[in-house]
Amino acid sequence: MSSAREPATPEQMIDNDRVRVTRWSFNPGAATGWHVHEYDYIVTPIIGSAVTIVDGEGRETAVEMVAGVSYFREAGVAHDVINAGPGPLVFVETELKEART
Amino acid sequence: MSSAREPATPEQMIDNDRVRVTRWSFNPGAATGWHVHEYDYIVTPIIGSAVTIVDGEGRETAVEMVAGVSYFREAGVAHDVINAGPGPLVFVETELKEART
Repeated sequence: MSSAREPATPEQMIDNDRVRVTRWSFNPGAATGWHVHEYDYIVTPIIGSAVTIVDGEGRETAVEMVAGVSYFREAGVAHDVINAGPGPLVFVETELKEART
Repeated sequence: MSSAREPATPEQMIDNDRVRVTRWSFNPGAATGWHVHEYDYIVTPIIGSAVTIVDGEGRETAVEMVAGVSYFREAGVAHDVINAGPGPLVFVETELKEART
């Protein structure tokens, strides 16, 4: 299952032994495409937007990403993330590369 | 040595076994006040600004925080962070609570 949408643009800013930090930029309608999170991660929106999350069963969930409002998710999450808003969506993803101690 | 400036406003968004994530909001001229970083951390600006960093010897360094441009620093950094710009400064600080493996 893949998204025929315009892909979001990743820009990796930090990749060291502890974290990988990537800025993701979406035009309206763009999507990450299906992916599985390898690491626990934090998302920090920079420019917020309405977002549609599509899970493994194709179920769609509407969420709002708000600038400056971060959230934490655990490794294993699998989904497609679509910018459902009329404007750009930009968020920073911080992945925790070390196993949980 | 403390900053007689208006304090920046912290809002803790996440505090679990792995990370502490805090949004810091500064009016023009506001500052964190002197502090020592207990953990490795990532700063992700949401609303950027000109910033003055004051180190332990009182030396001032002018830096620019740019929205969406994250940076990583190690535990032990000690400084005061002042919003030197004419407008607000907002950034999200992600602290890595686990020791480096």
